[in-house]
Amino acid sequence: MSIDLRSDTLTKPTQPMLEAMFSASVGDDVFGDDPTVNALEEKVARLFGMEAALFCASGTMTNQLAIRVHTRPGSEVICDKNSHIYLYEGGGIALNSFSSVKLLEGDRGRINAQQVRDAVNNPDDVHAAVSRLVSLENTMNKGGGCYYNLQDIQAIRLVCNEHGLGLHLDGARLFNALVETGESPVEYGRVFDSISICLSKGLGCPVGSLLLGTKDFVKQARRFRKVMGGGWRQAGYLAAAGIYALDYHVERLREDHARARAIGQMLQQLPEVEEIFPIDTNIVIFRLPETILAVDYVAQLAQKGIRAVTFGKHLVRFVTHMDFTDQQLEELGKRL
Amino acid sequence: MSIDLRSDTLTKPTQPMLEAMFSASVGDDVFGDDPTVNALEEKVARLFGMEAALFCASGTMTNQLAIRVHTRPGSEVICDKNSHIYLYEGGGIALNSFSSVKLLEGDRGRINAQQVRDAVNNPDDVHAAVSRLVSLENTMNKGGGCYYNLQDIQAIRLVCNEHGLGLHLDGARLFNALVETGESPVEYGRVFDSISICLSKGLGCPVGSLLLGTKDFVKQARRFRKVMGGGWRQAGYLAAAGIYALDYHVERLREDHARARAIGQMLQQLPEVEEIFPIDTNIVIFRLPETILAVDYVAQLAQKGIRAVTFGKHLVRFVTHMDFTDQQLEELGKRL
Amino acid sequence: MSIDLRSDTLTKPTQPMLEAMFSASVGDDVFGDDPTVNALEEKVARLFGMEAALFCASGTMTNQLAIRVHTRPGSEVICDKNSHIYLYEGGGIALNSFSSVKLLEGDRGRINAQQVRDAVNNPDDVHAAVSRLVSLENTMNKGGGCYYNLQDIQAIRLVCNEHGLGLHLDGARLFNALVETGESPVEYGRVFDSISICLSKGLGCPVGSLLLGTKDFVKQARRFRKVMGGGWRQAGYLAAAGIYALDYHVERLREDHARARAIGQMLQQLPEVEEIFPIDTNIVIFRLPETILAVDYVAQLAQKGIRAVTFGKHLVRFVTHMDFTDQQLEELGKRL
Amino acid sequence: MSIDLRSDTLTKPTQPMLEAMFSASVGDDVFGDDPTVNALEEKVARLFGMEAALFCASGTMTNQLAIRVHTRPGSEVICDKNSHIYLYEGGGIALNSFSSVKLLEGDRGRINAQQVRDAVNNPDDVHAAVSRLVSLENTMNKGGGCYYNLQDIQAIRLVCNEHGLGLHLDGARLFNALVETGESPVEYGRVFDSISICLSKGLGCPVGSLLLGTKDFVKQARRFRKVMGGGWRQAGYLAAAGIYALDYHVERLREDHARARAIGQMLQQLPEVEEIFPIDTNIVIFRLPETILAVDYVAQLAQKGIRAVTFGKHLVRFVTHMDFTDQQLEELGKRL
Repeated sequence: MSIDLRSDTLTKPTQPMLEAMFSASVGDDVFGDDPTVNALEEKVARLFGMEAALFCASGTMTNQLAIRVHTRPGSEVICDKNSHIYLYEGGGIALNSFSSVKLLEGDRGRINAQQVRDAVNNPDDVHAAVSRLVSLENTMNKGGGCYYNLQDIQAIRLVCNEHGLGLHLDGARLFNALVETGESPVEYGRVFDSISICLSKGLGCPVGSLLLGTKDFVKQARRFRKVMGGGWRQAGYLAAAGIYALDYHVERLREDHARARAIGQMLQQLPEVEEIFPIDTNIVIFRLPETILAVDYVAQLAQKGIRAVTFGKHLVRFVTHMDFTDQQLEELGKRL
Repeated sequence: MSIDLRSDTLTKPTQPMLEAMFSASVGDDVFGDDPTVNALEEKVARLFGMEAALFCASGTMTNQLAIRVHTRPGSEVICDKNSHIYLYEGGGIALNSFSSVKLLEGDRGRINAQQVRDAVNNPDDVHAAVSRLVSLENTMNKGGGCYYNLQDIQAIRLVCNEHGLGLHLDGARLFNALVETGESPVEYGRVFDSISICLSKGLGCPVGSLLLGTKDFVKQARRFRKVMGGGWRQAGYLAAAGIYALDYHVERLREDHARARAIGQMLQQLPEVEEIFPIDTNIVIFRLPETILAVDYVAQLAQKGIRAVTFGKHLVRFVTHMDFTDQQLEELGKRL
Repeated sequence: MSIDLRSDTLTKPTQPMLEAMFSASVGDDVFGDDPTVNALEEKVARLFGMEAALFCASGTMTNQLAIRVHTRPGSEVICDKNSHIYLYEGGGIALNSFSSVKLLEGDRGRINAQQVRDAVNNPDDVHAAVSRLVSLENTMNKGGGCYYNLQDIQAIRLVCNEHGLGLHLDGARLFNALVETGESPVEYGRVFDSISICLSKGLGCPVGSLLLGTKDFVKQARRFRKVMGGGWRQAGYLAAAGIYALDYHVERLREDHARARAIGQMLQQLPEVEEIFPIDTNIVIFRLPETILAVDYVAQLAQKGIRAVTFGKHLVRFVTHMDFTDQQLEELGKRL
Repeated sequence: MSIDLRSDTLTKPTQPMLEAMFSASVGDDVFGDDPTVNALEEKVARLFGMEAALFCASGTMTNQLAIRVHTRPGSEVICDKNSHIYLYEGGGIALNSFSSVKLLEGDRGRINAQQVRDAVNNPDDVHAAVSRLVSLENTMNKGGGCYYNLQDIQAIRLVCNEHGLGLHLDGARLFNALVETGESPVEYGRVFDSISICLSKGLGCPVGSLLLGTKDFVKQARRFRKVMGGGWRQAGYLAAAGIYALDYHVERLREDHARARAIGQMLQQLPEVEEIFPIDTNIVIFRLPETILAVDYVAQLAQKGIRAVTFGKHLVRFVTHMDFTDQQLEELGKRL
């Protein structure tokens, strides 16, 4: 048995989810005719108290669409230097939105209001790109799955209001934060102009993300989705999985978090582990000594049937997810 | 019963196709780990005798990816003025590839070698965009589903070779042409640098298109797909439909063509039909007199339970497809 | 003595213009500190009754800046298929503004209100680019220097108002039209949202064009000018030529037109000239028989000391300008 | 008398330079026909031992053209986080070249080979932009006019060779470095793929920069220059100033440096000056205490007839230049 902790995107649909998919009503979503897609979009918009939602093929697509709608060519996006939108979306801020980045050093990737205020360019200075968007990530992947305090986000919101900036949330793993804090999606819908959430990580869907915003915002995003080729026809089969996941898979994220903490305790026993990052949700990052390269360590783990990814020269990352069970946890302990 | 002839994208999967989909093995396609996606890509590449294929969410995505890889900013794409890539992909040639268009007037959308030769810009003239790509469409949607002679394409290929231009095929409905001409996909794979085919039209799949090219070409396209957000995780459920369709749904396109011709004969009886375009495959376009607006006529059809789309001020289009059966054909005759 | 009729961009400054240039006060225009640039911009804005102007290095720059400010990525620009902005600006509409073109067939390049109305895309159709700008050219270079009736422009303005489109004028040779019609620049300033004029053609300046619009429009254009590298420091030396030209060289454009008509009469004598296009301003275009290639004919002219450019396979273009005097006209007659 | 130390771009041409300009032979540079532009381009190319040069309106234009030619959409440019190309060119890397930035923390803006090596993205990772260019700035404006050791640049060159990266120099103030180190332009021409130099800073020309590279590189840049509107007609008047400056104004840069050091000594007397950055060339940067805002201090200086710019919240910058004479230096001492 291989224990695969490379990513929570690897979870396979459960049998009941597959059955939900299999029995979905579908139609041509490009024409707005897929009832299951429409139902998912309405469900998620309602959940967040936002006007509209758009079902897309990936979180990169929802993030990139949001940035496109918020910006104009020559804009600047303010975000943490380790943001997914900057590091892992293929340079899309520049390529899709013709916009620059102002990279901040957050606390494990969480930036604050004062940093944002200092980062805003003088709008009258033709030498500088035009600050137009702040983008946060919650939970923060590169920060080891840490999450924001809502008050800190609200403080950033005020800075955005002062300077006329949009505020976007890359909420690929937002539900991981919400089950920990007990906050509701509506509180997030209120503070952000746009939110991207992923169904294909801890929620266990095979494919899909949603972008939330005002009706007009989503209308503009839908247009850009089309020109990027993201209009998909009978996407209802995939949307049905999303509906199922939102009904049955949110609360169980706590289990992933508990198992992640349990892994942390196992790692404390290992002499080669120099530091374990705080484990706030489902991500475990640990540091090896200078003498051990992460790439070699990951290769050794693979030989023991444990799959992980490097997360820096001497950093290794585990991510817990639906397919990682208590039984696998126990087995992991033995193999480590 | 509504008779829906708006588009062949509306076909719903059959029960056997659905069963193929939901018994598929899947994995994370972003990591290249989805076995069914990989199998589909290999199957289609082999079918066309091309090196590699990429499974994408739409024909717009495959076309736009191809244009991106073939061009550099400031290029010019040579195509018919009614090409799907120019008219119906949201201005993507400019937006995704930063490239201009040289629009030719083909014979029902089919351009010829001499037109292409005359359209190539002088590469040393800094005033003109750089000609870098010729894009053909086969069958040609706006031409009423007409198709090219392969020799005419080969003549265009020679012009492309002379001038160092790439040659792309928007083959959204290529199989409709192939079942009529008896030509093989390999003959097309040989003459084009890149080919886009759709699974979601006459082939009856819910979602999906493929882009074909050399290994290096597809590698570059895969990178652009990622940054456009088109990387999808467990896309194998959709890929399985494609494998099924290629095995069982190609030959039956002839039935759609026969029914389209039958519709043509019905239309000849109608006094308000002024002209019926030649019916070569599964598309039927007819002209109304100046006194009747297509938009009104389509509304009247809808009241009779017949759904169609306008295709110009006085033009109406029907498209036959898998869900349009002989029984529906008979019923259509009665309602018309 | 070579008689150079390739272009009116070739005119050299006169001695008084040179003296005006080199006695100019200058400063750093990037900081807005060049008094002569400021004086020119104010003078031209006042002349057209528009709020502001921006002095730039070329007409391509002023046109491209205007298109950038009027559009957003994924827009469509409506213009004649022979427009300078489409044909001779390096594919800049796509490259600089990420926008498509809707190409119309005007009367010698002059499009009309009905054509524009028919060309506007349905703003709710995600398949089509978003119509956002109409661009006219007056006089029309490829139309042989013909000009618009102001009423025809006003009719186009109404269509723009109906559909929320901007209206730009490529007025590289606008003064050639104005001296013929007797209309005033203010009438043009009233009907267009933005106007580009060139100082370096018939007006005889060495370098320079101006973009006119509202204060906010010009402010946005100034920002894009900077990022394109068009901010120039002590441009006052060149601006001084512009001030001089507007004071002393506008009325004399009539002389260029008279000489162009005189050339037309000469050409009528030549057996090889099949057709002479109407000569409305300072451009003379004539057609050779199928048996003579323009490129060969131009080479023969060069041997006689007459320089011209080809304007199509069998078309040749002469342009009259300040350096083409009555004496040269006489000499031209002899050599032809 | 105002003492203007805001920038070395403010220098006015001397009388002999003006005379050189005034007597220049000119032609249409868009056609390649301006003899003085051609002479300047050849002179500079020869000076650096590079194949070709292109005369442009600004250093932003030459830098941005270079980045365009070196990259493809989706590339990443590696540079110091305080580079002019990133901070002061309006977000042009993203807007003009559709490329991301990897921002390094150099020693006063000078990055090293190891930093570059660590910054190169894995070319097979579709999540990351494609590393394609390293750009250095010498002297480094934000570093207070400091300069590189040529060996350090050569070490970076080796990393570029390993990874197939281009190497560009923003040499806006390169001659300031060269007169200090005694190195020759040819040594720079050998190590860089492209170099941008400015004539309008310490060299005292009113307008103009040059981009150097191979013939093919410059040909591509010339095309992009056209589409950006940077093709200028009779630019020879400005080119003549450049020829003069290269003949007569290079060695005198030492005087600017001596006066900058003299200012440094004056500043040491001032109690409010907390720190003076090392003064390597013609830039003087000093830090005020937390209690004094640079913007207020600059306003006070202005009241004493001294013009300077803020360079951070508590930093002020002086730049010495041709118009800042010994007499002005003495007067500055009195006023400070």
